[in-house]
Amino acid sequence: MLLETAFWTGGAARHTFAEALQFSRSKTNALAAGLIEQGLLDEVGVQHSTGGRRPETLRVHEDIGVLIGVDIGATSLDIALLRPDLSVIGRHSQPADVQAGPVPIMARLRTLLPTMLAQHGIAREDVLAVGIGVPGPVNFAVGQLVNPPLMPGWDSYAIRDDLREITDAPVFVDNDVNLMALGVLWRQRRQIQNFLVIKVGTGIGCGIVCHGALYRGATGSAGDVGHICVDPEGALCNCGNRGCVEAMAAAPAIVAMGLEAAKSGRSPALAARLAAKGRLDASDVGAASRDGDAEADAIIRRSGRLIGQVLAALVNFYNPSHIFIGGGVSAIGPMFLAAIRQSVHQRSLALSTRHLEITSAPLGPDTGLIGAGVLAMREALSSGNPA
Amino acid sequence: MLLETAFWTGGAARHTFAEALQFSRSKTNALAAGLIEQGLLDEVGVQHSTGGRRPETLRVHEDIGVLIGVDIGATSLDIALLRPDLSVIGRHSQPADVQAGPVPIMARLRTLLPTMLAQHGIAREDVLAVGIGVPGPVNFAVGQLVNPPLMPGWDSYAIRDDLREITDAPVFVDNDVNLMALGVLWRQRRQIQNFLVIKVGTGIGCGIVCHGALYRGATGSAGDVGHICVDPEGALCNCGNRGCVEAMAAAPAIVAMGLEAAKSGRSPALAARLAAKGRLDASDVGAASRDGDAEADAIIRRSGRLIGQVLAALVNFYNPSHIFIGGGVSAIGPMFLAAIRQSVHQRSLALSTRHLEITSAPLGPDTGLIGAGVLAMREALSSGNPA
Repeated sequence: MLLETAFWTGGAARHTFAEALQFSRSKTNALAAGLIEQGLLDEVGVQHSTGGRRPETLRVHEDIGVLIGVDIGATSLDIALLRPDLSVIGRHSQPADVQAGPVPIMARLRTLLPTMLAQHGIAREDVLAVGIGVPGPVNFAVGQLVNPPLMPGWDSYAIRDDLREITDAPVFVDNDVNLMALGVLWRQRRQIQNFLVIKVGTGIGCGIVCHGALYRGATGSAGDVGHICVDPEGALCNCGNRGCVEAMAAAPAIVAMGLEAAKSGRSPALAARLAAKGRLDASDVGAASRDGDAEADAIIRRSGRLIGQVLAALVNFYNPSHIFIGGGVSAIGPMFLAAIRQSVHQRSLALSTRHLEITSAPLGPDTGLIGAGVLAMREALSSGNPA
Repeated sequence: MLLETAFWTGGAARHTFAEALQFSRSKTNALAAGLIEQGLLDEVGVQHSTGGRRPETLRVHEDIGVLIGVDIGATSLDIALLRPDLSVIGRHSQPADVQAGPVPIMARLRTLLPTMLAQHGIAREDVLAVGIGVPGPVNFAVGQLVNPPLMPGWDSYAIRDDLREITDAPVFVDNDVNLMALGVLWRQRRQIQNFLVIKVGTGIGCGIVCHGALYRGATGSAGDVGHICVDPEGALCNCGNRGCVEAMAAAPAIVAMGLEAAKSGRSPALAARLAAKGRLDASDVGAASRDGDAEADAIIRRSGRLIGQVLAALVNFYNPSHIFIGGGVSAIGPMFLAAIRQSVHQRSLALSTRHLEITSAPLGPDTGLIGAGVLAMREALSSGNPA
């Protein structure tokens, strides 16, 4: 309990622990002394030369081990080595195609991880735990993906077993948006209790925090909002239904609308980019918008409005205090967030939006990677003695 | 803790308490002995004549007091006097128009409650706590309604103060659908952890249970699903937007569709009922459907389909294990529940619906009233010594 509080607060004064845990000052000091002796907790802060004052701030000891965070995205692989306070020791990022299936991605991970550890002089046994985020629904207890629509080859693949030969540390796998929610929860020091994190990239997903804890739903698929219908007559989705918000507003839809605007001649800016690159990304639509292209603006506004339409319903239902927007598309430009906000405020009840804040995810593109570190640390701490 | 477990389990064997609370058998017995001595806990079960066997089952002592449950509906006032095991001592129901404002309704309550207590020989000081459900958003901490759309005169009215002259027991006020959720949670012995209760009556609301506890949202308005949009071109709602599910599918919409079918001559059955009564209720549409009227069938199916459309989105987002449907309209006929189910299964992801159960609320029309008793008991227990 004391260690968990030390982790979530990022280090805090002794009296803060006593208050948070409803322990007496003397019980807190006794427990802390034991953990300090075991090398799990560290004392920092002013030490008066008279020697009479005890260092006030307690935090998780840096030497208890290194955390590994892995973010397997639809189109990228990100790895971070993290200290117990989640500061970054080293990180690596490379493009990767998750649709190629688990075998090549996991093989790369088995090569990259030992190399990174060696580069930073970290021994295999110093790794405390590994957290891995994947872009699909996960059965958390067994660490396997369940029918992931974006990555069919990964269904029921034993990700944890695959890393046994390179690490003895426990490996935890969760959905990427759940990890973003954990990252935000940690960044906010658990001070906000009921919020949503929306990831808009190749797909659209949602992480849910309820009463200060990650909510996974009855069978682990909570937050799967990408297939909520925004238009019964809308575009056909790969799930078989029509008008899913993911099919209408995520990166592939933005690219499709951009291509259409380029080829029809309505957007000279996008046509020029298409001619230069031979293809378009969602970020090209963002760049064209920044260059003043009206068609690109309209595409971004339309995507934001449709996502806001779904969020309006979720705000009425869930009444979150905050919605954090992350994922690749969230960086497309300020107009995107503005369109989401406008759409939510138009359709949600005043009572639910009066104190609602809709902002970018606080850790930016690293939210999921840091969240993977939070998962690793949280599970290591709750599984007993982490050292 | 022991008392709360005794209440939620409805009485259980000693070893069940030890397991649920992770106490040793001897600690459980010592705590139980103290509570039995104080008259809070009661022992029941086989007592062998040899005298060697201790009664195994512990439950909340019947003599700790009487609970009062009140359900203020849009069109009715229901009151129940309940034992600590929520069995009914006496109940009273009468039509009431909540739109008349708090003064006449609360005055009635101040007359009815002492009369009911006297009828059953219950002294004023024997009342343990009062739970009141109201059909609008509630600031639970202060027990006041906040901008209730169906009952404007009740905004910020001090319901608790109004009962001070007739009872010294604490009074707790919550939204009616939250109380239905508490009623279901108690009825299910807290064995299901993540579920929704939908009330379809004059309005449409939702109670949310998350990780085994009632979820009220960041500012207490969670579950306000009646104003989720199902058709941007749909009927105008009293909230100012178009196509809210409440405006399209709740009782007034069903009545409006019924009147239209009666007056246009499309439904002879509804025309006959209208001629006989001079008006139509939602239950008339149900009766016409049972008599084989195709138009009435179509109205019920349409309402169920629209509600199912909203629930499909909520199922993708929240992944509940169960959805319980209650409220006056839920009794309109089996076709209603069937249409909801069909609509949810058509639009939700297979992963979320594989184990999903959509059924009628287990305590029927008394779900909210029993839930008011659960609220009263829960708050009385958690506020310390209930006797």
